[in-house]
Amino acid sequence: MSDTSSETPANFDEIRALLGELPGPDIEAAAAAAAREAQLTKPAGALGRLEELTAWLATWQGRHPPRIERPYAAVFAGNHGIAARGVSAYPAAVTKQMVQNFIDGGAAVNQLCALANADLRVYELALDEPTQDFTEQPAMSEDDCARAIAYGMMTVESGIDLLCLGEMGIGNTTSAAALCHALFGGAAADWTGRGTGIDDARLAHKTALIEAAVAKHKAALSDPLEILRHFGGLELAAILGAIMAARLARTPVVLDGYACTAAAAVLHALDPKALDHCVVAHVSVEPGHARLLQRLGQRAILDLGMRLGEGSGAVLAVPLLRAACACHAGMASFAAAGVSGPA
Amino acid sequence: MSDTSSETPANFDEIRALLGELPGPDIEAAAAAAAREAQLTKPAGALGRLEELTAWLATWQGRHPPRIERPYAAVFAGNHGIAARGVSAYPAAVTKQMVQNFIDGGAAVNQLCALANADLRVYELALDEPTQDFTEQPAMSEDDCARAIAYGMMTVESGIDLLCLGEMGIGNTTSAAALCHALFGGAAADWTGRGTGIDDARLAHKTALIEAAVAKHKAALSDPLEILRHFGGLELAAILGAIMAARLARTPVVLDGYACTAAAAVLHALDPKALDHCVVAHVSVEPGHARLLQRLGQRAILDLGMRLGEGSGAVLAVPLLRAACACHAGMASFAAAGVSGPA
Repeated sequence: MSDTSSETPANFDEIRALLGELPGPDIEAAAAAAAREAQLTKPAGALGRLEELTAWLATWQGRHPPRIERPYAAVFAGNHGIAARGVSAYPAAVTKQMVQNFIDGGAAVNQLCALANADLRVYELALDEPTQDFTEQPAMSEDDCARAIAYGMMTVESGIDLLCLGEMGIGNTTSAAALCHALFGGAAADWTGRGTGIDDARLAHKTALIEAAVAKHKAALSDPLEILRHFGGLELAAILGAIMAARLARTPVVLDGYACTAAAAVLHALDPKALDHCVVAHVSVEPGHARLLQRLGQRAILDLGMRLGEGSGAVLAVPLLRAACACHAGMASFAAAGVSGPA
Repeated sequence: MSDTSSETPANFDEIRALLGELPGPDIEAAAAAAAREAQLTKPAGALGRLEELTAWLATWQGRHPPRIERPYAAVFAGNHGIAARGVSAYPAAVTKQMVQNFIDGGAAVNQLCALANADLRVYELALDEPTQDFTEQPAMSEDDCARAIAYGMMTVESGIDLLCLGEMGIGNTTSAAALCHALFGGAAADWTGRGTGIDDARLAHKTALIEAAVAKHKAALSDPLEILRHFGGLELAAILGAIMAARLARTPVVLDGYACTAAAAVLHALDPKALDHCVVAHVSVEPGHARLLQRLGQRAILDLGMRLGEGSGAVLAVPLLRAACACHAGMASFAAAGVSGPA
């Protein structure tokens, strides 16, 4: 348990208050990274995004050189009332079955964590008590939503180098699409995709449900946390909490796909600087994800046509972040290597 | 030395003859990969490009499941007569200095190989004898060019899982641009970029030299190997040879950036199937690279704004290929994990 536990919020007002306490960038670490980068044996900027990621890691780990020695993947699982409305290709029972698969080591994220030497933790959020069907009423009470956020906060231990976030929840791309439609407007179709792989008819049904639900609750959606409460899931609320706790603990965060980023978008709507310690690992096939990244001013590191969730994209990016750190820390300087600079 | 040594070609006719001996895909391994992929606990296709890479590795390693236990990075270094014409931001002496940096372990590719657990081998091609200035005469004689190709072939040992190819050679983006302009036409400006980071005036000078050189030699450019001889470098010829030898040894190849892919493009022009065992690791900032990938029908795995060469992008992709193999080999099936399929 981190030293942030004393700050665990119990309601939306306490969550809003906590936003004022999020630490800013470590300018000194960023400057040290920039100074070293300029001396390394390569043309200036030749490692491209890797150089940016090094500077970002230094800035938000608050140390130079940045290191990834203790990465950690947290996968939050929740069930959704909306799943009963036939929005997914898979039955809601799969959420729990996949959690067991994570525990047994059989999922993609297990293999990726083993390869990246990352600890995997799986957090179940009351899988037998799905959220309400948001086409009828808000998905969660404020109490349940705040408790899920606080739960997410409490999962962030201190001493972690890098936190990869992911989710599992049948129906949660429907939840993500509703969150984005409520947060950013546009048409429901802009934000709705095939999730695990639904056909055209089911996609039309899913889109219509989202459109109607956001219209129905419109008057109550004045605040991002109210939007989360209406359309989110417990696992998405927990992700929002984990992002906040990581910021307080100076732990950079790697976000996964559409549902995970939609949870982060709620935090961004509350405070546009609240995601500065986050990168998005990959852009999902889910069409709303690219649109969402644009709204958040985020560029994904990878674009590999993935749409699995469970933190798979986030953990896949860990070796690239490690590579950035390794080049920065290990390369020789022009002076030390006796390599001539530009003529 | 592989069992291909007896086939080492001594001239262009022998190289053309060897193209007829390149083995095709292993259909059986590809089918085994597809069959297993369909059983794994994820929606069909949810790992996107990783699934394609698994199938590609199985196909060209000729085994299932594919594995990456002995990856190998080969960096070929050569000097270019054209460098004396002021086309680079760096003096030609940097080629040799960077080779020493590779040997001393101080370059980016050293850090990336250590992280990817890949063997790094650096091959110098007569650094004290640069090619001719191709604005005046062909860069190489047929004899020198064929010998460099044969040298590249001989570097490919048997038993390697994956071969990452890279280059070092001040002036070789000029060589690459001339190769592409001669192979694919268009304007010289379409293929010419800032390399290590030249300014507008030097870029205009570089472009004009390439335009004039390709026009000057036009009558002699009826054949891709003649194009290589006129504008290539020794390190680029060696890369072409290494690609061929890897195919003969059933070793999949990861290509790096613009210069490396331009060398591969010569082989593609000789036989469009000759690169089927190759993937391109990343798309370079060098603007000709994206255009070249389109002509080759290749999609890069990464797009990270890199432009370093030395095999850095290729080795950076190794953990992603390993991740693809790990998911494929290690994930549970729906049946074994007791996870429900689509409803």
